[in-house]
Amino acid sequence: MRAVEPNATPVRIALLGYGTIGGALHRLLVEHAHHIQRTTGRDIVVTCALVRDASRARAGIAGSSMQLVDNADELFATAPDIVCEALGGVDPARSLVLRALSGGIHVVTANKQLIARHGAELFAAAEAASTQLRFEASVCGAIPVIRLMRESLAAARIESVQGILNGTTNYVLSAMASEGSSYEDALARAQALGYAEPDPTDDVMGIDAAAKLAILAGIAFQGRASIDQVATTGITHVSAADIQAARRLGCAVRLVGRARRHEDGAMLDVSPALVPQGHPLAAVSGATNAVLLTGATFRELALQGPGAGGPETASALAGDIVGILGSTASFLTHDPAIGGLQATSPDLLPERHYVRMLVPDRPGVLAGIAGALADHDTSIEQVVQSREDGDRATLVLVTHPSTRRDLRRALAAAGFGHPEDSPHHATVMPILESPT
Amino acid sequence: MRAVEPNATPVRIALLGYGTIGGALHRLLVEHAHHIQRTTGRDIVVTCALVRDASRARAGIAGSSMQLVDNADELFATAPDIVCEALGGVDPARSLVLRALSGGIHVVTANKQLIARHGAELFAAAEAASTQLRFEASVCGAIPVIRLMRESLAAARIESVQGILNGTTNYVLSAMASEGSSYEDALARAQALGYAEPDPTDDVMGIDAAAKLAILAGIAFQGRASIDQVATTGITHVSAADIQAARRLGCAVRLVGRARRHEDGAMLDVSPALVPQGHPLAAVSGATNAVLLTGATFRELALQGPGAGGPETASALAGDIVGILGSTASFLTHDPAIGGLQATSPDLLPERHYVRMLVPDRPGVLAGIAGALADHDTSIEQVVQSREDGDRATLVLVTHPSTRRDLRRALAAAGFGHPEDSPHHATVMPILESPT
Repeated sequence: MRAVEPNATPVRIALLGYGTIGGALHRLLVEHAHHIQRTTGRDIVVTCALVRDASRARAGIAGSSMQLVDNADELFATAPDIVCEALGGVDPARSLVLRALSGGIHVVTANKQLIARHGAELFAAAEAASTQLRFEASVCGAIPVIRLMRESLAAARIESVQGILNGTTNYVLSAMASEGSSYEDALARAQALGYAEPDPTDDVMGIDAAAKLAILAGIAFQGRASIDQVATTGITHVSAADIQAARRLGCAVRLVGRARRHEDGAMLDVSPALVPQGHPLAAVSGATNAVLLTGATFRELALQGPGAGGPETASALAGDIVGILGSTASFLTHDPAIGGLQATSPDLLPERHYVRMLVPDRPGVLAGIAGALADHDTSIEQVVQSREDGDRATLVLVTHPSTRRDLRRALAAAGFGHPEDSPHHATVMPILESPT
Repeated sequence: MRAVEPNATPVRIALLGYGTIGGALHRLLVEHAHHIQRTTGRDIVVTCALVRDASRARAGIAGSSMQLVDNADELFATAPDIVCEALGGVDPARSLVLRALSGGIHVVTANKQLIARHGAELFAAAEAASTQLRFEASVCGAIPVIRLMRESLAAARIESVQGILNGTTNYVLSAMASEGSSYEDALARAQALGYAEPDPTDDVMGIDAAAKLAILAGIAFQGRASIDQVATTGITHVSAADIQAARRLGCAVRLVGRARRHEDGAMLDVSPALVPQGHPLAAVSGATNAVLLTGATFRELALQGPGAGGPETASALAGDIVGILGSTASFLTHDPAIGGLQATSPDLLPERHYVRMLVPDRPGVLAGIAGALADHDTSIEQVVQSREDGDRATLVLVTHPSTRRDLRRALAAAGFGHPEDSPHHATVMPILESPT
C-alpha cells in the first residue's frame, strides 16, 4: 500500500487566466492552504498566473508571492506541478493544456467546450504522460457529480442520470411559472439580469445541456459519448399555456437531460419534460442545477446546487486539486491542533417558532399569552385558534424570530410547561428558513 | 508529484463480518473489480471473511477464492491491505479495528457507534501507524457527504449543515402526514414493516441523529464534536394536530439535525422542525436521508439518498476503498478498451407524454384524434379541453406509455406537425415518472 509520506516540498500551482474564476480560485487556495495541507498532507503555493497584460494592476495580488506573466513560456518556466485552466474557449486553452499534460503537469479545468470537443486528444496526452486531467467544474458548477460517480460509486452500476444541467433555461422556465409570463418575456428578463447571454442559442436550444449530458453519460456508463448522440429539443416552443396545463396536471416544466442504459448502450435525450411534484427535479428552480442518479445498489441519489458563478466554479477546481493530491491523512486526524468544538446552546439562536397549545375557550386567554410573550421580547406573527371539544381551543402561534430560551420563559410565565412536565403544555418547534 | 505507478500486486481485502452488509460488499467488489482497477490502477481481491461459524454454508461463496475463518488471527495471517468492518456494535469491532490500524492495515467501516464512541482512540492509532480509517458508510448510507465535505469542499468554508439523518423518524413523520395517523400508530406500523426497531428509543429520541450530526459537524467545522454537545429533542411529542397545523402553514414536520458555526464554535441541534415547502428538506419523505450544506463559495449544496440498507451501505464502503486506493488514472482514460457508447434514439422508449394542440371547437375533433392515436398503439389516459377565442379549443392529452415515434406518427396522421413546420402543430413533452 502507498504510505502516507510527509512531503516538505510545496505543490506549485499555476493559473491560466486571472478573471472571475482565476481570481476566486487564487483567493480560495490562499485562504484554505492550511486546510488543504491537513487533508492532503501537502503544502500548496500559487506561483504564477498567465494574463494578457501583466502590467495591469489587479486586486488581491499586492503582497502575494504570485507572479503575473503574459507569456506561457514564463509560466511553464516556474515548473508548476498543477495547472488550473480558467481561460475558457478552445484557443489557446487547448494547446496550453496539451503542453502541460504532455510535460508531466496535472491539469484541472472548468472548460466544458474544451472537454466536449477535444477530450479524446487531451485524455490521450494525459494517459501517455501519466498525468491527470480533471474537469469537475465543467459540469454543474459546485456539485461534485463527476467525482461521486467515478469514486464514491465506483462499485455501483449506474442505470440512469437525469439532470437540470442548464441554469439559463431553468431560470426562464421558473420565471414563466412564477410570473405567468411568455417565453419571450422571461428570456428578455433573464438577459437583462445577466442569467442569459445576448445570444442565448446554445442554452435555449439545449446544446449546452447536451454537451454536459454527454460528459456525464460517458462517466456513468464508461464509454465515450458525443454531443451528436444526444437527441436534443430546446425550450423555444414551450408556452405559458404549457406551463399552466402542466401545473394542472401536478407537474413543473423543466429542461431535463436524461441518459439511460439501453441494451449495450444508452439513450441520451435533452428535452423539456413534465416533472411531477415530489420528483427531486421538480422543486429545482431558478439558476440551480440538479442531478438524479439511479442504480440498484444505491437506489436514488439526488444532488442539487448552484450551476455556475466564479466562487462556485473555483470551489470545484480546488476540489479537483485536492483530488489530484489525494486524501492521505486519516479522516479526523489526531492532530493535537484540532481541539474540541466550542458548542453554544441553540436556545440562544433567534428564529421563528411554531407553538401549539390547548387552552380554555374563553375571552382573554390569547391576550394573556400575548402579554407574556411581549414581556419576553417575543412578538407574534400569526395566530390560528380552533375550537375543540369540552370548551377548549387549540391555539397555534407563529412567532417572529425569538430565542427558544425567551420563548420557553414566556410560555412558563403564561402557565405552559414542557410536554414532559405539565398537563398545560405547549409544543414548540423551530421553523426553518427557506434557503435563499 | 506522485506518479501513476502501475502496480501488479493485487490489493488484499478482508471482511470483518459476512452478514447483509458484508455479503453485499463482497458481491459488489467481485462484480466491479475491473471498474475499480480502471479507476484506481489497482487490482483487488477479497481474500478472507471473519464469521462466527466458518463451517456454515453461505450463498455466494461457492466458487469464490475467498476464505471463511472464525478466528481473527487467521484473518490477519492472510496479510490484508484493507479491512472492511461490517460487524456492527462496539465489541469486538473496536479491538479488531485497532489491531488492523496499528498493524499498518487501512480500515473502512459503516459503524457509527464505533466512530462516535471510540473515534479519538481509533484515529490516534491510525495516525500513529500512517493508516487510514474511513467511515463514509456510517452516516447517511450511500450519500457521500463526508467525502464531499472533506475533499470536494476542501477549499470552502462550510457555514452550516442541516440534515434529515434518521430514516425511522422520517418514515414515521411522513406516515403521520400521508395517513393522518397518530404518532403511536405510525410507529407501530413502522415497527411492523421493519423500518423501526422493537426498541425505537435511539431513533425516536433523536439520539441516532445526534451521533451522526456530531460526526458531520466535526468534519464540517474541523474540530471534535461529541454527541453530548448536541441539544436533542425527539419526535415523541409531535402529534397529528401539529402535522395538520404545519401543513396549513405550508410546512412539513421533519426531525432535523442542524450544525451552524457560531463565534469560534458551533450550535448543534436535533429537533423536530417545521420545514417550508420549497426547502430542499421538505420533500424528503419515507426512509430517505438528506443533507443541505451552506457556505459562501458554493452557496447551497443538497444531497439526498437512501439512508440505510445492505447494498447502499456496501456501496459506500466500496467508495471508501476506492478513496484509499486513490484515483490515479485520468478521468476518461484513453484505454482503447473504452469504446464509444452505442446510442439508441429515445424516440423508441415508451413513456407517458403530454400533448397540447389548438383545434377547431366542433364535434368529432377529439374522436378523430383519438382514432389516429389508437391506430398507432397510443392510448389516452386523460383529456382536458378548454375553449379559446375564435371557435377554437385547446386540447391537452396525457397518453399512456407510448413511444415518441408512434405518437409523432399518430399526430401527423391527424394533421398535426412539429411546431417548426406546421401551423396545425402539437407540443409534445415526456412526463417523467416519479422515482420509486
